[in-house]
Amino acid sequence: MEGGAPEERTIRIVIEYDGSALVGWQRQRNGPSVQQHLEEMIARMVSHPVRVTGASRTDAGVHARGQVAAFRTVARIPVDGLRRGLNALLPPAIAVTSAQEVAADFHPRFHAVGKHYRYTLLARPDRVPLLRSTAWHRPRPLDLEAMSAGAAPLIGEHDFAAFRAAGCSARTTTRRIDRIDLRREGELVVIDVRGNAFLRNMVRIIAGTLVEVGEGRRQASEIAEILTSRDRTRAGQTAPAHGLTLMSVQYP
Amino acid sequence: MEGGAPEERTIRIVIEYDGSALVGWQRQRNGPSVQQHLEEMIARMVSHPVRVTGASRTDAGVHARGQVAAFRTVARIPVDGLRRGLNALLPPAIAVTSAQEVAADFHPRFHAVGKHYRYTLLARPDRVPLLRSTAWHRPRPLDLEAMSAGAAPLIGEHDFAAFRAAGCSARTTTRRIDRIDLRREGELVVIDVRGNAFLRNMVRIIAGTLVEVGEGRRQASEIAEILTSRDRTRAGQTAPAHGLTLMSVQYP
Repeated sequence: MEGGAPEERTIRIVIEYDGSALVGWQRQRNGPSVQQHLEEMIARMVSHPVRVTGASRTDAGVHARGQVAAFRTVARIPVDGLRRGLNALLPPAIAVTSAQEVAADFHPRFHAVGKHYRYTLLARPDRVPLLRSTAWHRPRPLDLEAMSAGAAPLIGEHDFAAFRAAGCSARTTTRRIDRIDLRREGELVVIDVRGNAFLRNMVRIIAGTLVEVGEGRRQASEIAEILTSRDRTRAGQTAPAHGLTLMSVQYP
Repeated sequence: MEGGAPEERTIRIVIEYDGSALVGWQRQRNGPSVQQHLEEMIARMVSHPVRVTGASRTDAGVHARGQVAAFRTVARIPVDGLRRGLNALLPPAIAVTSAQEVAADFHPRFHAVGKHYRYTLLARPDRVPLLRSTAWHRPRPLDLEAMSAGAAPLIGEHDFAAFRAAGCSARTTTRRIDRIDLRREGELVVIDVRGNAFLRNMVRIIAGTLVEVGEGRRQASEIAEILTSRDRTRAGQTAPAHGLTLMSVQYP
């Protein structure tokens, strides 16, 4: 059919960012967000406004090594040129590491089947200046064995109501955690959490609670009780945003 | 002897810093230096002016995991309290990880017998936002074998005049490199250089030259010729400061 509307393509991009100076994924009035930077620079490259949807609405200060997002465009621009052009236009705190055309109905959040988050702790008396925006500094030693024991009851499908932020608006609070791996890397303690989906602040509250176990301020055996209680006030503090990184998002 | 001058102690400190927002080690008119921050905060703690001498006068943007410095004080303050107090006063970009009383004549630079510098490269097409202030991004693949072959002739005692900054004021240009170790860590290439002492920008010029070898723009065999030439214009570019970290300083 001649003269019809130009065909729309859906482009999936993978994005890395240093969340330190960003207000988070989602557009906000109080500062620059990843979504805003992407929408402005993509619009400049495709010559029409775009709406970029992300897999995870990461909070201010949270980093990403593998955020996934998508947008629609009528532009015929090759995906490789788009990726390179965006990296030239975007601020140094944001990079696009992959761009590809996908099925028209692809949705980064609804179609995601798994997410991998990493929480990083620095366990030594004095802070490390080079890690101050990527690891939560804990001056006391951490008992990794106790933390692993504390993490065990969280594995599987559970009601995680005790591990969500007060402002979390999710309708259901049942989620599935597939793995929690803890390991020491020199002075760092790295917590890798993999699951199908996460409630608001869920990984940070898990990290904050496990730190209390690791510092001996709480018994590992309490975690199962906290989970059953569904009571946010029973769990530990929300670990700070800067220790958290969205590592990857899985699709079928 | 009663009423005599109070006894002076020499305190040796180990310092880490993120050089990104600093003008380097040495006091400058154009912005905050590590030396200035330390002198101001130590003076505040010991209640008299101090002069802090460092082992290495790192340039603006260069980081440290193990800079060593010393100062003299008449204050009776315990070294552990001094370290903790300094970390409370210093900006987050600087941390003191050790403080101890040493022999009165200790000099961090003159008594150093070795230094370990690390140069970090990021070798992948797109930048990594979280590494933008600690690794030099090279979008093309790096041939590590060629780089190691290029580094080999630099080991030992040589006249490194070809590998020093134009403004270097050292009287002699003979230095000894003990080891150059190259290894891949995921997308990173890490160059560890250990030697007795270094000329101004020496590690950065070595790194810049080795990168040219790694990218196939120069033969590994040229390095020996460059060394013999003693001609700075024959060596490669000075790699940027932000990839360099002073790892440690050795004493007898």
